[in-house]
Amino acid sequence: MTEGGFQFGPKLSEYVDKIVASYDADARIRHVGQVYLPDRVEIVRLVRKLLELIYPGFVGRRNLTPNNVARHVGDLLPEIGELTYRQVLHSLCHVDETENPDASPGKPCAAKAEQVSFAFIDAIPAIREMLAADVQAVRDGDPAVLNMDEVILACPGLLAISVQRLAHALYALDVPIMPRIMTEWAHSKTGIDIHPGARIGRHFFIDHGTGVVIGETTVIGEHVKVYQGVTLGALSIPRDDRGRAIRKTKRHPTVKDNVTLYANAIVLGGETVIGENSVIGGSVFVTSSVPPNSVVTFKPPELRLKNRTSPESPRPPAGQPGYMPDYTI
Amino acid sequence: MTEGGFQFGPKLSEYVDKIVASYDADARIRHVGQVYLPDRVEIVRLVRKLLELIYPGFVGRRNLTPNNVARHVGDLLPEIGELTYRQVLHSLCHVDETENPDASPGKPCAAKAEQVSFAFIDAIPAIREMLAADVQAVRDGDPAVLNMDEVILACPGLLAISVQRLAHALYALDVPIMPRIMTEWAHSKTGIDIHPGARIGRHFFIDHGTGVVIGETTVIGEHVKVYQGVTLGALSIPRDDRGRAIRKTKRHPTVKDNVTLYANAIVLGGETVIGENSVIGGSVFVTSSVPPNSVVTFKPPELRLKNRTSPESPRPPAGQPGYMPDYTI
Amino acid sequence: MTEGGFQFGPKLSEYVDKIVASYDADARIRHVGQVYLPDRVEIVRLVRKLLELIYPGFVGRRNLTPNNVARHVGDLLPEIGELTYRQVLHSLCHVDETENPDASPGKPCAAKAEQVSFAFIDAIPAIREMLAADVQAVRDGDPAVLNMDEVILACPGLLAISVQRLAHALYALDVPIMPRIMTEWAHSKTGIDIHPGARIGRHFFIDHGTGVVIGETTVIGEHVKVYQGVTLGALSIPRDDRGRAIRKTKRHPTVKDNVTLYANAIVLGGETVIGENSVIGGSVFVTSSVPPNSVVTFKPPELRLKNRTSPESPRPPAGQPGYMPDYTI
Repeated sequence: MTEGGFQFGPKLSEYVDKIVASYDADARIRHVGQVYLPDRVEIVRLVRKLLELIYPGFVGRRNLTPNNVARHVGDLLPEIGELTYRQVLHSLCHVDETENPDASPGKPCAAKAEQVSFAFIDAIPAIREMLAADVQAVRDGDPAVLNMDEVILACPGLLAISVQRLAHALYALDVPIMPRIMTEWAHSKTGIDIHPGARIGRHFFIDHGTGVVIGETTVIGEHVKVYQGVTLGALSIPRDDRGRAIRKTKRHPTVKDNVTLYANAIVLGGETVIGENSVIGGSVFVTSSVPPNSVVTFKPPELRLKNRTSPESPRPPAGQPGYMPDYTI
Repeated sequence: MTEGGFQFGPKLSEYVDKIVASYDADARIRHVGQVYLPDRVEIVRLVRKLLELIYPGFVGRRNLTPNNVARHVGDLLPEIGELTYRQVLHSLCHVDETENPDASPGKPCAAKAEQVSFAFIDAIPAIREMLAADVQAVRDGDPAVLNMDEVILACPGLLAISVQRLAHALYALDVPIMPRIMTEWAHSKTGIDIHPGARIGRHFFIDHGTGVVIGETTVIGEHVKVYQGVTLGALSIPRDDRGRAIRKTKRHPTVKDNVTLYANAIVLGGETVIGENSVIGGSVFVTSSVPPNSVVTFKPPELRLKNRTSPESPRPPAGQPGYMPDYTI
Repeated sequence: MTEGGFQFGPKLSEYVDKIVASYDADARIRHVGQVYLPDRVEIVRLVRKLLELIYPGFVGRRNLTPNNVARHVGDLLPEIGELTYRQVLHSLCHVDETENPDASPGKPCAAKAEQVSFAFIDAIPAIREMLAADVQAVRDGDPAVLNMDEVILACPGLLAISVQRLAHALYALDVPIMPRIMTEWAHSKTGIDIHPGARIGRHFFIDHGTGVVIGETTVIGEHVKVYQGVTLGALSIPRDDRGRAIRKTKRHPTVKDNVTLYANAIVLGGETVIGENSVIGGSVFVTSSVPPNSVVTFKPPELRLKNRTSPESPRPPAGQPGYMPDYTI
């Protein structure tokens, strides 16, 4: 190659100055000179370690036996404890530091972070029990899976609910930001966007999952099934007098036990309740409550069918040069 | 920072015991004391090596020349052979071990794994030929791409079909679980969920792709185009007397040659056939067969248009404090 | 384990020959013997470094202070310069080499690559300013976020627009292929597919985002909001006399200032203009222009509601063996 390298030469300091000036000009998107900030990389590392703890032998270290499993857990737990503690600490202290920059936030949030970390680790066996029921739900509901192990190794819906149940435990302990980073990692991997605030009952099944959105204040019962593209969303966003969205109002639906929501169904509104044992058909758009034991389907829009060939204009064979469809979107 | 570290102290063994007790309490989501299990990390490594073999110079090692290419292939193939063999072996023996825990599964599945691995590697040149036609299909169909190379480097639809064609070869050789792990990796990267069981003809084009779902028993002809959000799905799921889904029944549609399916079209049902040369318009919802040469569009729902400003109530300029939209979802 | 390893043995050279013959048979999907090709791995590395430069302290190196920030920028910039230059060079020379294989493309494209790289780096402070307004837009629009920092750490819509604004700068400088690799990386991470060609005004907000498609020739004003599943797409694709798509014609919509597009809205066509201050409701399908200050909603398809239980046939309790839904999709 003839091209050689790229050199700023003496102009480098000029370029650096422009970038630094751009940092100085607007404090909103820099994190310079502050101490606390949750670390996305470390939080993802923690999530992976938690999945290794929850699904032993499936994630991370393999070849576990009854003889080595306790030592494996004994290796994992201190690492999980440390990662949890540090990220909870940064999340809690970050809010203190941001909202009250003159105080020194270290001590009270350190104490709270320790307490939260233990409470979170205490909750892991109960979360595992929930997740075992979720794995069973996928096994029972998806005709394309062979066994429970395939669910754990391959199904994105299980990954999404696994991470959300962990994140929800931290959310319920009032940890800011960190739970959302966890669920957004799962969103990135699966296309399934479940806010950590959503309260989701046992034996939950998401199939395919891409495009699913489940909002912060959604409440879901037991034995609920959700297919790809389902939105459980807000109908309107309450705003303050500066026009900014107000947080934490109940603005997403309630879905009762044994409800199934088929692909691309959209259910909106904080007062909308889908009654138990109901089925919401594919592509149904609902903004008001549905009584228990209902089957809701939509009358599909009228279809227009026309024949695309006419005897006067013979077409070149499809796939050949010159072939042109009549209609495109 | 004032916070110090996090210590379990003497309570560690208590925590470990609780986790191990949770493993003992429910065998469904642990893999402890068994020998065989496909390894997702190794399977992804294999997929990347297969893509390097199929698209030489584009993926993995660069700067290939006519002089070094044979040696490059000679380095790659043994690695691919070993990875394929081990993961096929684990997939086959895992099922044997799970279904018949008292037998020692090693020998028969090792022999079958070797046979399957050679059959798979034998199929690679034919898969490459299919994929060259798929690259051409994207090049011809997507006005936003410059040339074939951009398709290989950037288009998610090509990644999805590349992995699915490889996974389908293993699925057709009766390898369990491993093919689904392959396609779910592609699903995670692209938002395109094609089950390894789907049979897909030559010159296949998926544009944008996010949200596409193509079910296990789908059959697709040649020169078919699919846009984002298209579902080729099941209308009902056959269940056994315990209410569990029954596998492998034909429950997804058949799409004949030269069909185009525009964005968010939904076609459901194992007996639904889209006849050749047909066009299924965007957002069309079809649960019964469509004759050849059809153009199917939907009559879009009636729109309601109202003016959001009224002379009596002047609004603050949009984007300013106090500005509020009339309508939100 | 009893299985041993996998050996090609003396057949290896036969397998290698078959693969190399498959390379020789079709030049379309190999890159052998040519010099230039953009490198996806290096481009992703560059994107990460650019995000580190734009959001200091949030991405990559942490614990920045007013004392070390200039040195940090002084470390990053030469690396960014070198990565930018090499990938721009490969992108430009690749096209020269492909279109004119007999010429030696090195010198003119090296000169242009240097010029483009400086122009791109010059643009970074202005891009940062745009992105600060985008962060503000998410903060103001999403009731589930706490503060600006959470937006930067967690919101996929911000990642998508950050990468697109960087890619658009290179697109506007006539760099081929590389910008699309950048936005397809963001697409892979977020499910949001914004072509680098789209022109997008300040203070842009995408919520949830999975399934969003914004085409190459889309033009978007300021203060626009877009929710999950929105398509700004083409109504028809102009084709040449060989049936291949023609590039760069205006085929995607224009969206004016202060427009909101709710979930799954579809707007198609290069002559379609959504007038300023308009609201396009969820699931609305629009193929013609909408006047300013409009609120467009769709009359949702009629719903059919039936009760799924009848007194004659008592059902087993939901979730129990034998329980079967009446209706499935």
